[in-house]
Amino acid sequence: MRLRNKPWADERLGEFPNYAIAQPESHKGKWRELFGNDNPLYIEVGTGKGRFITEMAKAHPTINFIGIEVYKSVIVSALDLLIEAAVPNLKLLSVDAVNLADYFEKGEVDRVYLNFSDPWPKTRHAKRRLTHSSFLGIYESILPEKGEIHFKTDNQGLFESSLLSISDYGMKLTFISLDLHNSSFEGNIMTEYEEKFSKKGNRIYRLEAQYR
Amino acid sequence: MRLRNKPWADERLGEFPNYAIAQPESHKGKWRELFGNDNPLYIEVGTGKGRFITEMAKAHPTINFIGIEVYKSVIVSALDLLIEAAVPNLKLLSVDAVNLADYFEKGEVDRVYLNFSDPWPKTRHAKRRLTHSSFLGIYESILPEKGEIHFKTDNQGLFESSLLSISDYGMKLTFISLDLHNSSFEGNIMTEYEEKFSKKGNRIYRLEAQYR
Repeated sequence: MRLRNKPWADERLGEFPNYAIAQPESHKGKWRELFGNDNPLYIEVGTGKGRFITEMAKAHPTINFIGIEVYKSVIVSALDLLIEAAVPNLKLLSVDAVNLADYFEKGEVDRVYLNFSDPWPKTRHAKRRLTHSSFLGIYESILPEKGEIHFKTDNQGLFESSLLSISDYGMKLTFISLDLHNSSFEGNIMTEYEEKFSKKGNRIYRLEAQYR
Repeated sequence: MRLRNKPWADERLGEFPNYAIAQPESHKGKWRELFGNDNPLYIEVGTGKGRFITEMAKAHPTINFIGIEVYKSVIVSALDLLIEAAVPNLKLLSVDAVNLADYFEKGEVDRVYLNFSDPWPKTRHAKRRLTHSSFLGIYESILPEKGEIHFKTDNQGLFESSLLSISDYGMKLTFISLDLHNSSFEGNIMTEYEEKFSKKGNRIYRLEAQYR
């Protein structure tokens, strides 16, 4: 997405330390303590402006959620949604996905969501795609055995390369829709981007895959 | 496809024993002898009216092809194309795909093509789909190690169920296109059905998958 420089973003996040977690490495292995319960923990990598993760947290109060977004100028919008929702089961982290293993122990995250990730269409940028094998390895290092990733996008090329990457990694495809909005899938929560581009006629692709 | 009863089909096939092989079990393990060379052997399961396999045989003279179609009233159309093409590297078999292991030894077939197979959309008919795990097992029993299947269809539901089935079987996806006719894929040879339905705007889906 287009990034606007927001020099005040850092300060804004600092004003809500209970929502935007400042030193995530200090919570490694102890996230359930922070949430104050033993519920499952689902994270969204690349949470953007936060609509998906906020609506998920509202819809599923017995699951803990963490929205992760590297750009502070973007995650401040998610913070606004969280302030309004005022739910106890959602936290936000502004960190780079390549470092996820610094913040979560093996098995501490129960599911990874990826929604409308940056497609990085050029072959020389393939390693930056959030479904590249290097990222699949990072997710595996924080998920339990047979952990799952749930991924949707309207970008055909990214979906194709993700299917190849997931298969090459040896993961098992457990769900697929090549036209989510014209399928029988229930309970879909749309991202901001998804609403905008599906209205323009873009197909939404979705998959779930499991580590073996 | 719609089947017309053609009581004369059997007789017609019998008139061209060099093209329509009458006792395929007698050639098991000896197909290279029949073709008179050691070239690779590619088969199409569900060859229909034969345009794909005939064009493939013309385009690839150093590969042997066998078109397999259970309905004699359909394969007679493929026979007409083969008579016209008069190529030495194509044979036709009217047999049921469930019995393929009766006609080919392990490793005797180098590649399996599936094109616009019957989608069998009802769940209770899932076992009849040519990408169902039981058929993947049959193909594996006649292909070499790391043998491949190449599959295309315009049927979204069949393509989705095939991706799940292939992954569940443990095969590796090595190629995918979710819109073949608007991709960079070269050398595509269209089936009769493909030409008709892509003109109507249907997307063509294609994959290649390899046994591990």
